Amino acid sequence: MGAKNQPNLDFEEIHRILQLAGQEAQKITLKYFRKTLNIDNKLRQGFDPVTAADREAELAIRAVITQHFPDHSICGEEWDNKETNSPYQWVIDPIDGTRAFISGLPVWGTLIALTFEGKAVAGLMSQPHIGEDFIGLPGKAILTHNNVETKLLTSKVETLEQATMFTTSPRIFLHDKSLAAYNELEASVKLARYGLDCYAYAMLAAGHAELVVEEGLKNVDIAALIPIIEQAGGIVSTWSGKNAAEGGQVIAAANPKIHALALEYLAPVATD
Amino acid sequence: MGAKNQPNLDFEEIHRILQLAGQEAQKITLKYFRKTLNIDNKLRQGFDPVTAADREAELAIRAVITQHFPDHSICGEEWDNKETNSPYQWVIDPIDGTRAFISGLPVWGTLIALTFEGKAVAGLMSQPHIGEDFIGLPGKAILTHNNVETKLLTSKVETLEQATMFTTSPRIFLHDKSLAAYNELEASVKLARYGLDCYAYAMLAAGHAELVVEEGLKNVDIAALIPIIEQAGGIVSTWSGKNAAEGGQVIAAANPKIHALALEYLAPVATD
Repeated sequence: MGAKNQPNLDFEEIHRILQLAGQEAQKITLKYFRKTLNIDNKLRQGFDPVTAADREAELAIRAVITQHFPDHSICGEEWDNKETNSPYQWVIDPIDGTRAFISGLPVWGTLIALTFEGKAVAGLMSQPHIGEDFIGLPGKAILTHNNVETKLLTSKVETLEQATMFTTSPRIFLHDKSLAAYNELEASVKLARYGLDCYAYAMLAAGHAELVVEEGLKNVDIAALIPIIEQAGGIVSTWSGKNAAEGGQVIAAANPKIHALALEYLAPVATD
Repeated sequence: MGAKNQPNLDFEEIHRILQLAGQEAQKITLKYFRKTLNIDNKLRQGFDPVTAADREAELAIRAVITQHFPDHSICGEEWDNKETNSPYQWVIDPIDGTRAFISGLPVWGTLIALTFEGKAVAGLMSQPHIGEDFIGLPGKAILTHNNVETKLLTSKVETLEQATMFTTSPRIFLHDKSLAAYNELEASVKLARYGLDCYAYAMLAAGHAELVVEEGLKNVDIAALIPIIEQAGGIVSTWSGKNAAEGGQVIAAANPKIHALALEYLAPVATD
């Protein structure tokens, strides 16, 4: 299939399915949020909790997708990939920000993306404890909070001196070169803030921050956030400026100017 | 007045006044939250935003307190102290976490404490975007979320290896000695998390974390949180184990055991 192909879907239906899948996931996540959890470690090294909430919520999301689009591929954080011949793939992280989740902090989110030929074209970030859904679709980026809908629009700030930047933690940069580049960039911005995950990208889409810089992301961590940010006026790319839908070193920026300024620091240490 | 004096107030009335003051503050803070703000710098050095929301919300809180207790002292973050001969003082931070506030993140809070002879006896932490009030009163610690009330109870985890610790940022520790002590402590816990303010203490009161460690706090940053945590079963003190109601180097711990374990790292570098 060539690059000129366009997704041939009813995006009002996609909108409804994203919301429906989010609601099904929420029934499970809120049943477990702020309750005592049995946490097992996904990796022996480090701390990567997987909860029953994560596993059950992904099954609920998959069930909604499969019912409506039985021929689409599905890639989720918790269960095996479903691979088909379709150019469409759904990319799911039932609970992005599991550390926030187990610490009671409502800055985790349920991420659901629809990709077409590897490009993210629709996405949902749902934070049900607060009652927020951030949604990106072709030509549309919106936030609904307790059923009140507002349009998402990124910041017009075009200098690093005025910029707010988010990252999960300076400790996520495991290579000396990327940590050094991040530190230099951090020293150039007005305000740096830690401790978020998907919520950082949602705030950028809503115009409250200019940059998110992270390393070591998976496709499920980022794909859903790309359409939300792009349709709000922002840019998401790898540190070398390529499609970030597969993860890796990721930068999200509020506008092309601030994106270019930040890439001056990051592109020289890009690994892709 | 001796140490044996006890506050002689109707704490059901205090409960109502805390909630009423929180509601009056919320009318103002939510009018400004996630709207474009005019931010002036309180300090030329660094970044300490003060917003119109901060100033107006404090006036609204002071009006409620003054109406009910015209003879009590009042100390607020934004306006001059009101000093009387009363043993009672109200200690107010209209928006704790101004950086979160201006970044759109709903982890700021409105803090209102009542102190008696310098000891915090009642406190409110209100997060109105989420719809949460954390309240501590003699014999009572509760969370109301969208009008559903639950009892706050701290964690029973008694080892550092199993503990979750919060701090605003490792960069708040400005002295080499306190940073080194913090880093050693961080290396001993299961999970460290950054980017909160008052919300970290609220999560500790609710049983989702075992430690909060910070330096350079003011009385308005901490006084309201002390009764919430103490009545939920936790401990708040300075790094040398003294009353933390005046701020400084502060540790909050879920139980006496974890408090003692963390003080082994912090007490040697305590400055009080």
